[in-house]
Amino acid sequence: MARLSKPLWASEISKVIGGILEGKDVEVRGIAPLNLAQEGDISFAWGSSLKRDMLVSKASVLVVPERIKCLGISKTLIRVRDPRRALALFLKRFFKTEHSLPPGVHELAFVEEDVSLGSEVRVGPFAYLGKGVSIGARTIIYPFVFIGKDVKIGEDCVIYPMVSIREGTEIGNRVVIHSGAVIGSDGYGFIPEERGIEKIPQVGIVVIEDEVEIGANVTIDRATIGETRIGRGTKIDNLVQIAHNVIIGENVLIAALCGIAGSARIGNGVMMGGQAGVSDHVDVGDKSVVAGRSGITKNIPPGSFVSGFPAINHREGLKIWALIRRLPELFERVKELERRGRDGETKDDSKKR
Amino acid sequence: MARLSKPLWASEISKVIGGILEGKDVEVRGIAPLNLAQEGDISFAWGSSLKRDMLVSKASVLVVPERIKCLGISKTLIRVRDPRRALALFLKRFFKTEHSLPPGVHELAFVEEDVSLGSEVRVGPFAYLGKGVSIGARTIIYPFVFIGKDVKIGEDCVIYPMVSIREGTEIGNRVVIHSGAVIGSDGYGFIPEERGIEKIPQVGIVVIEDEVEIGANVTIDRATIGETRIGRGTKIDNLVQIAHNVIIGENVLIAALCGIAGSARIGNGVMMGGQAGVSDHVDVGDKSVVAGRSGITKNIPPGSFVSGFPAINHREGLKIWALIRRLPELFERVKELERRGRDGETKDDSKKR
Amino acid sequence: MARLSKPLWASEISKVIGGILEGKDVEVRGIAPLNLAQEGDISFAWGSSLKRDMLVSKASVLVVPERIKCLGISKTLIRVRDPRRALALFLKRFFKTEHSLPPGVHELAFVEEDVSLGSEVRVGPFAYLGKGVSIGARTIIYPFVFIGKDVKIGEDCVIYPMVSIREGTEIGNRVVIHSGAVIGSDGYGFIPEERGIEKIPQVGIVVIEDEVEIGANVTIDRATIGETRIGRGTKIDNLVQIAHNVIIGENVLIAALCGIAGSARIGNGVMMGGQAGVSDHVDVGDKSVVAGRSGITKNIPPGSFVSGFPAINHREGLKIWALIRRLPELFERVKELERRGRDGETKDDSKKR
Repeated sequence: MARLSKPLWASEISKVIGGILEGKDVEVRGIAPLNLAQEGDISFAWGSSLKRDMLVSKASVLVVPERIKCLGISKTLIRVRDPRRALALFLKRFFKTEHSLPPGVHELAFVEEDVSLGSEVRVGPFAYLGKGVSIGARTIIYPFVFIGKDVKIGEDCVIYPMVSIREGTEIGNRVVIHSGAVIGSDGYGFIPEERGIEKIPQVGIVVIEDEVEIGANVTIDRATIGETRIGRGTKIDNLVQIAHNVIIGENVLIAALCGIAGSARIGNGVMMGGQAGVSDHVDVGDKSVVAGRSGITKNIPPGSFVSGFPAINHREGLKIWALIRRLPELFERVKELERRGRDGETKDDSKKR
Repeated sequence: MARLSKPLWASEISKVIGGILEGKDVEVRGIAPLNLAQEGDISFAWGSSLKRDMLVSKASVLVVPERIKCLGISKTLIRVRDPRRALALFLKRFFKTEHSLPPGVHELAFVEEDVSLGSEVRVGPFAYLGKGVSIGARTIIYPFVFIGKDVKIGEDCVIYPMVSIREGTEIGNRVVIHSGAVIGSDGYGFIPEERGIEKIPQVGIVVIEDEVEIGANVTIDRATIGETRIGRGTKIDNLVQIAHNVIIGENVLIAALCGIAGSARIGNGVMMGGQAGVSDHVDVGDKSVVAGRSGITKNIPPGSFVSGFPAINHREGLKIWALIRRLPELFERVKELERRGRDGETKDDSKKR
Repeated sequence: MARLSKPLWASEISKVIGGILEGKDVEVRGIAPLNLAQEGDISFAWGSSLKRDMLVSKASVLVVPERIKCLGISKTLIRVRDPRRALALFLKRFFKTEHSLPPGVHELAFVEEDVSLGSEVRVGPFAYLGKGVSIGARTIIYPFVFIGKDVKIGEDCVIYPMVSIREGTEIGNRVVIHSGAVIGSDGYGFIPEERGIEKIPQVGIVVIEDEVEIGANVTIDRATIGETRIGRGTKIDNLVQIAHNVIIGENVLIAALCGIAGSARIGNGVMMGGQAGVSDHVDVGDKSVVAGRSGITKNIPPGSFVSGFPAINHREGLKIWALIRRLPELFERVKELERRGRDGETKDDSKKR
């Protein structure tokens, strides 16, 4: 589906992705998934339906796992240790994301006073840069981006359309923020009083470290006081909520629709599946794995693997779930025991007579 | 609450919605729910609290199910087979959604080179149309819409404010996209490496077929390679996440806050309740019903009705849930059996003595 | 972290927050959380890790609970009944949220005909005000806000960037709407017909009463007919979905990622934890507490405390959950009873021989 900017030989590609070429060297003009590929395309194949899909694919070149048997396939093959990694290498080498904004600050952008812009910054039409904003070299600001007062953004960042970055936010280098994300909105801090619910002013900030990627329509609230922090290299999927004063470590992966409540801490290298939740003030230890849809209500130690709600050790959870499905059987067995008990009693009773 | 553009006779309305008029013909000036209706209003009544609500409603005309008894109600009635369908008919006939944008491209819209616009297209102020964009006849682009490079949009679409449509997206005819939706953001593709987490460039696209409706703040990611596809007639509620390479069939209904993980396939005619989730690479068979808050972790065959997490057959789930609530009783019963067992043993022991 | 506009004496602060000063009166220049505070900062301390954190904090002044023992701490203390309330008081008194928009309507805002603006309204560049819009005194409209036809907004409101307010919406006084929220998008009303799925036009409105606060990327759909209503003083966290015709009472707290389905009613003073859901047409009684991740499928009476899915009384839920974790034990115990039963039978059998 995706065209290469110029055709490549299979042998060139094989070299780049560290593979072994099998079959004749052919020209590759594009890349597509197995099922959508046409002649001239390369496809990367892994996973359970691989063999079935390979047989019907029209791709000219297949990148496959080292040891797989490819009987009945007469295509050019490139054997690699890990086709998914090979795909990443291939795409990074041959498909650079093009940002279609011209260099410089567009005349339809709105730029307040005291704004500092690094070299080669690109700012699209209908972008808003508030007073005291500073933006590092080569950073790209798409149309419809709001950047509030005194926000600092580092170098080589990409801020996609419809992103709001509220006042005082600090963003590192090589950060990517996808459309619709809201950074630095007020934390949800309220106190119920007799005359109604009182707001606690939220005067802290959000700090986003280098190489973080933030998905579409994510919300990250500013701290009440102090900071909400997203650690270096962390990648957040779409529609995730990060509440005030949350501290997220480095290289964390958080899948879509997760919610992290106020003041929770997520350790380094944690992986969270989709729609999971973490209660407020809870610590999730480094390198823990949180299965999708888990609800974490208590601190969990480093290296945990938890699931379910309330989240418990995943292995225990699986065992318990298997037993839950056997509840109909268990009720039957207990009923049978009771029946026998009664029969026994009846016998005993008969003896008494 | 909603005024008709001009008053209608109950008899006219009855004809349009295929009903039978009962009582005297009166003039109708507006429509409102039973509890908010005033004199001159028509109300459509169904559901469990219908009879109670009818008695207190001030509506002048009630549209009711064919066979319902309406003792003590002296209003004009229109009897129909299905009041909800009748309401849809009534609203479609007498209330056209008005889009308050003037015809043509507003002078405050930003339109790049090589843009192709069909006849009667309306583009609001502060809209951004990138290079190579093509928009079909009569499509309406509200203010604050970002349309990236080479996006194709068909005829008679409505794109509400704050929608981001990233480069290369293909959208069919009669598609409605509500505010804040993000179409074509990067898929969440990362590989953990020793030096940190590496991004897999996402070079595929999103394809949205005819008559799809996409809710507010929905996110639909572009494919890694190939396409993420939303099938004809599918309706997606607010705040839903559709990950990269997901394929959604035709006439699917997906309620709010659902998450569909990467490469999952949702068959034709599937219905998903709110806050449900589907794991990556999972198939949901045609015409399946997925209850709200289900978490689907394995393929499910066509025509399934599943619920719970992990999702199982709904009937089995109900049975198991009933037994779970009886666990306190079961523990008691087992304790009682054990007590009897011990008493028995004690007796036996006493005999031995 | 947050600087005061001018230094304050600890004794002044103590007076404002109704505390008792202990130790020497010092000058305070800013506020920070215990762990981030520097000399010259004040910190407010409560919660479980308070004592540990106090010992290492560099803050010059600590606000602490009345009766706590502070052995080994030589800082200036301010003792108060409730440090969290004291923090709210302090922040409200000394940190006014500054909105960096100049007074008046910016020349780059787009204002349609028949717009009525109260005194001291501020409208930023790139804001869109549709025909017939009315905005009350001192209300602030940030850049990139879409306000549709005939929308009414009261006095002293703040509408942050990227908010869409669709036609006909009515908003009271002192309402705050955070970035990316969508108010008045079409309700999700569809009827499956043979030829496909038919849309029910959504012609109702959204009404938001005084002092409501709406989080980032929240979606609130217009009613099919009639209204969707958010009651006075209610505070909604980020990424919450409120469906068509929902009625939410006064002073309700709804945490992030909750979903309220069509026509549900949430009573006054209800508190909902994150990621909870309420099914359509369900009533949640006044002052009920809904634990995070609950799924409410049936009406619940006023004053309930529910959790789990399907949601049940929280106390029953805790008990049942404890028993679920003991299922492995229960299965063992039943197995043991069965074994004994069999041994008994065997004995009996042997007697028969």
